[in-house]
Amino acid sequence: MTPEVAYQELERRFRRIGNVDGAAAVLQWDWATMMPEGGANARSNQLAELSLIRHELITDPRLDELIAKAETDGKALSDWQRANVREMRHRQRHANGVPPDLVEALSKAGAKCEMVWREARPKGDFKAFAESYKPLLTLVREKAAAKGAALGLAPYDAMIDAFDPGYTMAEIDRIFGALEKFLPDILARVMARQDQRPAPLPLKGRFPIEAQRGLGVKMMERLGFEFAHGRLDVSLHPFCGGVPDDVRITTRYDETDFAGALMGVLHETGHALYERGLPEAWRTQPVGDARGMSVHESQSLLVEMQACRSLEFLNFAAPLIREAFQGHAPVEGEAFEPANLYAHAIRVHPGYIRVDADEVTYPFHVMIRYGLEKRMIDGTLAVDDLPEAWNQGMKHYLGIVPPSPREGCLQDIHWTGGDLGYFPSYTLGALTAAQLFDAAKRSDADLVPAIARGDFRPLLAWLRGHVHSVGSLYDSRELVSRATGKPLDPLIFKAHLERRYLG
Amino acid sequence: MTPEVAYQELERRFRRIGNVDGAAAVLQWDWATMMPEGGANARSNQLAELSLIRHELITDPRLDELIAKAETDGKALSDWQRANVREMRHRQRHANGVPPDLVEALSKAGAKCEMVWREARPKGDFKAFAESYKPLLTLVREKAAAKGAALGLAPYDAMIDAFDPGYTMAEIDRIFGALEKFLPDILARVMARQDQRPAPLPLKGRFPIEAQRGLGVKMMERLGFEFAHGRLDVSLHPFCGGVPDDVRITTRYDETDFAGALMGVLHETGHALYERGLPEAWRTQPVGDARGMSVHESQSLLVEMQACRSLEFLNFAAPLIREAFQGHAPVEGEAFEPANLYAHAIRVHPGYIRVDADEVTYPFHVMIRYGLEKRMIDGTLAVDDLPEAWNQGMKHYLGIVPPSPREGCLQDIHWTGGDLGYFPSYTLGALTAAQLFDAAKRSDADLVPAIARGDFRPLLAWLRGHVHSVGSLYDSRELVSRATGKPLDPLIFKAHLERRYLG
Repeated sequence: MTPEVAYQELERRFRRIGNVDGAAAVLQWDWATMMPEGGANARSNQLAELSLIRHELITDPRLDELIAKAETDGKALSDWQRANVREMRHRQRHANGVPPDLVEALSKAGAKCEMVWREARPKGDFKAFAESYKPLLTLVREKAAAKGAALGLAPYDAMIDAFDPGYTMAEIDRIFGALEKFLPDILARVMARQDQRPAPLPLKGRFPIEAQRGLGVKMMERLGFEFAHGRLDVSLHPFCGGVPDDVRITTRYDETDFAGALMGVLHETGHALYERGLPEAWRTQPVGDARGMSVHESQSLLVEMQACRSLEFLNFAAPLIREAFQGHAPVEGEAFEPANLYAHAIRVHPGYIRVDADEVTYPFHVMIRYGLEKRMIDGTLAVDDLPEAWNQGMKHYLGIVPPSPREGCLQDIHWTGGDLGYFPSYTLGALTAAQLFDAAKRSDADLVPAIARGDFRPLLAWLRGHVHSVGSLYDSRELVSRATGKPLDPLIFKAHLERRYLG
Repeated sequence: MTPEVAYQELERRFRRIGNVDGAAAVLQWDWATMMPEGGANARSNQLAELSLIRHELITDPRLDELIAKAETDGKALSDWQRANVREMRHRQRHANGVPPDLVEALSKAGAKCEMVWREARPKGDFKAFAESYKPLLTLVREKAAAKGAALGLAPYDAMIDAFDPGYTMAEIDRIFGALEKFLPDILARVMARQDQRPAPLPLKGRFPIEAQRGLGVKMMERLGFEFAHGRLDVSLHPFCGGVPDDVRITTRYDETDFAGALMGVLHETGHALYERGLPEAWRTQPVGDARGMSVHESQSLLVEMQACRSLEFLNFAAPLIREAFQGHAPVEGEAFEPANLYAHAIRVHPGYIRVDADEVTYPFHVMIRYGLEKRMIDGTLAVDDLPEAWNQGMKHYLGIVPPSPREGCLQDIHWTGGDLGYFPSYTLGALTAAQLFDAAKRSDADLVPAIARGDFRPLLAWLRGHVHSVGSLYDSRELVSRATGKPLDPLIFKAHLERRYLG
């Protein structure tokens, strides 16, 4: 068999896997948005079945032979095809790296731990949680070791690699180390300055859900979201799901606060534009997929944090906000002027909860988790010592200590499912967003003025060309270098914060 | 391997197939209700993949061996298990009866023919349709012959057997022959009587969709539909989909006519109650599935035609209808009295379109199609002669001739996908509904009075016990015999029509 023939067979096999993944994505979306509660058991059986089918397809020993064949003669394939084979190998190694018994044990222990966590979190009952988290963490460490051995990586690097190929502890240490040098000082200066200024005027009103939804849809259309290829719905936890030709985002509404849902819609629209813009010729192939978690998060944060939490955007948005809530809020007053909306959008407040954090304090939440994850994986932090270590981190970085594990180490779902290695992506994404937006602005002087006119086409065109359309052709680090001309540089994020919060 | 061990492995394998089927059912529901148009291509790839996976699972040669093993010693298994093995064998034979090349050729020719039909129907362009239907029909005849050989059945019987195990041409000829003896006379008498009476008062008004939906939901709840296990949505063609623990029905609304959507909701609720009531211990197993198309249709027609197009039901429903449309229609007038609503519900009108037909003329539409299908399969009717043969049938049974193939032989989608053998189920379902309702009434004198109070519990209890909970334990004919004490008897349908339309 020639490498070309092997390659064609590989494309066929991964098309099957891609279609199964797409089916699962729609079923997951339905679960979160449409499914009646009584459907949960049947649905979880359907999803487990698709997951098993996927696993069978990707661990088929014949796949290993085909990839090996396609790898033998690089010249027979195009750049995209070679990258596709590389991504196939990457997925195949991750799938085969964990023994089937361990996969099953992890799945059971994760499901159990998540159930316990849902009970324990509201009560702040760390002891109850710890009892089911200890056996899970043991299995996670086994998994990290097994994957590391299979991939030739350190255990925690193997975990990171599943979410964000290209990043390692060494690289993240370098980046977070740089953040650690300037971020505490920036936070102190921002707080001092903010304290000297009057608080923004409150945005009072009763904001009807239908009006909020209408405003969100209008913004999505402006940003370039195609409703012929997607939907906006409601779920408890906002997310972006579906497939590139049918991207489904969700938000949640609070009638006393329109900004949360609006910013959420902008954030998920960033994710959606990325999915929609992935290379059409490579649908269902690994190289055609989104690059990884940090690049994905960079796209949502670029839209939400970089482009839309700006005075330019709010100059454009304020009249639409006033129009949407006319009759329901005192929209003619000063509170709904762009300057006051902007003051709200960039309010900094060190708090306990990561998902509520502003962009200045958010990296501290991630750095705390990252430090703890490293130690949990290498065995130097025992589960019982987690709350104390957590609180020390909060005290150190943010000067506050959560009153209970509920607002502390029990707040996130990630660890309860065994997902260690994911958290760094959030901050890598924030830094990547700053660097990409910086490069986009430099390449097109009209990009920000266009946003102030509600015209996102220049921004979208740049993102399509430099990020979306390259899919997984490069790893995350190379993608950033190629798009911006240099490796990920935390000082660009620093400059962004200084300009916005101290300028 | 013992029969018991083989049986356990079979259950495991069919559980997988059942889960894949369930996943596909939700994806199909989403297609019809939620999916943006741009998602069609990706979705059809996902569904084709699931269909292929299902085919691979069911045609695995090992499955044949396992079934053979489980069949060897009947005493080792319970009645339900034996029936489950019988149903497994039935599905496995149908799947293996058609060579893979023919499956693929049929799928392609069917997809093409359906596309041509969508263009040709509005124009009444039979020639265009015929060109893509001829090659499809050739393949359908091959399939019928191949399945017939595999199943030991005549070709058209093998087609019927896929939808309605237990029925054959001989049995349907007997039943339709009986209908033919009394139905023309009944129709003539009904029309004569109807012509002598004043037409019902028109139901004027503008019926808001939200009010119609609210009324539909209220009726569904009364009927026993559990919203913790299902949904009501909108689609172009109403249907019942999903899985037994998550049953999803749809309707469509017309603001100038509330009765269409309401009757549609009642009809689909009948289907939904059946799905929901299937034996819980046998979820995802073949014996736990709905029996077949005629029994399924009997459940929708029993609720819609037998129970709800009655003066008793409308006595209960009229106040709720008036309440729903208060302020939008002259609901206090005589038009919205039960007697007038009932006159609308039982109006008979020979027309061209099957889906718009009343219960007296509907069987004629089916008998015409059944006669044509038999001749298409045995080769005595050429595709080019279809319009003429259709029109002869319409003239003979209903005394009218459609002005063009648009209102004639191009009206239905069934043949364009190669689905011959399905149409008889509609009328077998109507007869079954009449017989089941008759038996239910006899067994519980309070059943109809309860309906007049809006209490469907006695009816549902009877259906649960005699139809829903037996799943596919018996074939359709035995199910009817066991539930009613005798084989399907067209004279019970006749008595129902005489009582309702001539009494």
